[in-house]
Amino acid sequence: MKDMISLGLKHVDEKLWVLDQQLLPDREVWLECNHPNEMISYIKSLKVRGAPLIGVAAALSLAKFAETGASSTQIIEAAIALRNARPTAVNLMAAIDRMVPSRESKVDPARLFGLAEEIFDEDVELCKRIGTHGASLVEDGDGILTHCNAGGLATAGIGTAVGVIRKAFEQGKRIHVYVDETRPLLQGGRLTAWELEKLEIPYTLICDNMAATVMRSGKVQRIFVGADRIAANGDFANKIGTYGVAVSAKHHGIPFYPAAPYTTVDLNCASGAGIPIEDRASDEVRGAVGSFGLVRWAPAESQTFNPAFDVTPRELVTALVLDCGVYSRAQLEQGALNS
Amino acid sequence: MKDMISLGLKHVDEKLWVLDQQLLPDREVWLECNHPNEMISYIKSLKVRGAPLIGVAAALSLAKFAETGASSTQIIEAAIALRNARPTAVNLMAAIDRMVPSRESKVDPARLFGLAEEIFDEDVELCKRIGTHGASLVEDGDGILTHCNAGGLATAGIGTAVGVIRKAFEQGKRIHVYVDETRPLLQGGRLTAWELEKLEIPYTLICDNMAATVMRSGKVQRIFVGADRIAANGDFANKIGTYGVAVSAKHHGIPFYPAAPYTTVDLNCASGAGIPIEDRASDEVRGAVGSFGLVRWAPAESQTFNPAFDVTPRELVTALVLDCGVYSRAQLEQGALNS
Repeated sequence: MKDMISLGLKHVDEKLWVLDQQLLPDREVWLECNHPNEMISYIKSLKVRGAPLIGVAAALSLAKFAETGASSTQIIEAAIALRNARPTAVNLMAAIDRMVPSRESKVDPARLFGLAEEIFDEDVELCKRIGTHGASLVEDGDGILTHCNAGGLATAGIGTAVGVIRKAFEQGKRIHVYVDETRPLLQGGRLTAWELEKLEIPYTLICDNMAATVMRSGKVQRIFVGADRIAANGDFANKIGTYGVAVSAKHHGIPFYPAAPYTTVDLNCASGAGIPIEDRASDEVRGAVGSFGLVRWAPAESQTFNPAFDVTPRELVTALVLDCGVYSRAQLEQGALNS
Repeated sequence: MKDMISLGLKHVDEKLWVLDQQLLPDREVWLECNHPNEMISYIKSLKVRGAPLIGVAAALSLAKFAETGASSTQIIEAAIALRNARPTAVNLMAAIDRMVPSRESKVDPARLFGLAEEIFDEDVELCKRIGTHGASLVEDGDGILTHCNAGGLATAGIGTAVGVIRKAFEQGKRIHVYVDETRPLLQGGRLTAWELEKLEIPYTLICDNMAATVMRSGKVQRIFVGADRIAANGDFANKIGTYGVAVSAKHHGIPFYPAAPYTTVDLNCASGAGIPIEDRASDEVRGAVGSFGLVRWAPAESQTFNPAFDVTPRELVTALVLDCGVYSRAQLEQGALNS
C-alpha cells in the first residue's frame, strides 16, 4: 500500500504505526502494528481512538494482514474480531463491512489494499467538507466550546468538531475555544489541548463541571462536538458528558452542533435508544491514567458507573454538520437522514 | 478549652489538630496547629475545607492563640488574616466576626475560649437540625445525587447535604447515593466516597459529566448539595459544578435542594452577583493532587479557568434546607431570608 500519514496513524514504507494517545501530550510514542490482534488491543485500550479513526485504522490493519498472505478465512475472522473491538462507534463497523461485505463468502485479499487506501483518503476529504460546512456557522469573535477530542487525532484528516474550529481559524475568524477536559479519560485535557497548542488556536482548558458556568458568563456563542453514532432520527451518541453539555446549551440558548462524516450515520438505528453504549472499568473513574501511569484517588472499593458514551436526543441539536451539508433540527425531524 | 472532636478537626488535651483532607482517602494524617498562620495555610491549601468547618477551625485557632498569651493587637491581626484566608464561604467571616466583633477595639482573650466552644457545639447542633428537616423530604427508595463534600468533613457535625442523607438512611429509608467526583479537587471522589464507605451507605461514584445521564435514566429522585454562601434572595454559591447540576435537575424535573446552616446566609449580599468567587491555580485543572502527589496530564503551557465556586440562581432551587426549616422557592421569592 501507499504511504498514508495522519496525526495519529501512519503507513510508511509498508509499515503501519499508531501514535499511543494514552501517553499524550507528554510523550509521542509510535507503536508498530503487525497484526489485527494488536490493533484490537490498541483500540480497546484507547491508544487509538476517535470514531472515524478506529474505522480507518481497522481497515488498514486488515489490509496489512491480507498482505502477509492471510487466508480468506483468517481475514474474515480478523474482520469479525476488529468489528467487535468497541461497540458504540459505528464507523468501525462501516469500515469493516466495506472491506469484507459478506462474512460468509470468500475474500479477495488484493481488493483490500485499494479499499483501505480509499477509506483513508475519503476520511481526509470528509473532514475537509465538514470543516467548510461547519465553519460557515462560525462568526468572527465567537467563543466555541468543545467536548472530548474530535480532532486530527480522531480522524485521518483535520478532524470533525476541531476541523470546523481549525477551518474557521484559518479563515481569519478570531475565535476562542473552551475545551472540556472530558473525564474520565481526559481526551479534552490531553488531546484537544495538545492539538490546539500545535495549531496555535487560543483556548482555555476547563473541567467538565465548569462548562455551564462558562456558558452562563456569555463567553460561548457556539458548541461543536463529534459523534460516535448518529441514529436515523438525528439522536446521536458521543463521548460521555456530551448530553450534559447539550442540556446546558439549551438552557442558555446556545447553538449546539454535532459534526461528523456520513460514515457515523447508522440508518439501522431508528433512534438513540438503539445505540449500544460501552461500559468501561471502574479504575478509570477511581483515578486517572496518563504518561505518569495510573493513579487512584477514590476508595479502592468504591462502586462506579462508567459509560463511555451518552446519547443526546435530537431535540437538543440545533443542526447536524455532515460532510454533505448542514441539517437543521427541523430537517432531521422531517427525516432528512433517511432520504 | 474542652475536648472537641469531629471527623476532620479535634481539640484534645489542649492541642488543636486538623485531618489533612488532601491525603484522604488513602492516608489519615492529623496535623497539629500551633498558630493561626498555620491554620491559614491549612485553609488555603484545602487541608481543612468545607464552609462550616473553616469557620469553626478558624475560631478554635484564634482561641488557642489567645491561650498562648497573644496580645489584643496580635489577636485582632490574626483575626483579620484568618478572615481573609478564603473569600467565598461566609461562615469563615461570620465565625471571626463573632469572636472579634470590632476589629478596632480591645479583645478580651478569656472570652474567646467560650465563644470558640460555642461555635463548635452550635455547628454540631445545626447539622442535626438540617439533617432532620432535609430527611423529611426523602422518600424510601430514593436515588439521591450530591456534589462535592458537604459531610462530616465539611462541618463539626454530621454534615449538611450528607447529614440529610445520613439521617434519611438512619431512619431506615432505602436510598442510593450518586456521588459526583467534583473536579478539579475531587472532594466527591476522595471525601464523600470515603465518608459513605464509613457510614456503609450505598453509593455509586460518577464523573461530573455523567450526572445528566444518570438523571435522564430516572435513577435520581432528589439532589442535595451544600452551600458556601447564600444571598438574601436565595441565590447561593457552592463548589464549582453545582450550577450545572442545578441546570440539569431543572431540565429533568428533579427537586434540587441546597442544605446549610444559618451561618452560611449572608444578608449583606442582596443576590448571587455580590458573592466573591475565588479563582485558583492552573495546576489544579492541568492535573490532580492526592496522596500520590501532583500529576499533570494537560500541556504544561495550557491556559485554564479555575473558579472554585459557582453561583446557582434561586430560580433553580426547589427549596432551601436550613437548620431553622425548609424554605420553598416561593418563600425565598417573598423574602423569607430577610425576615
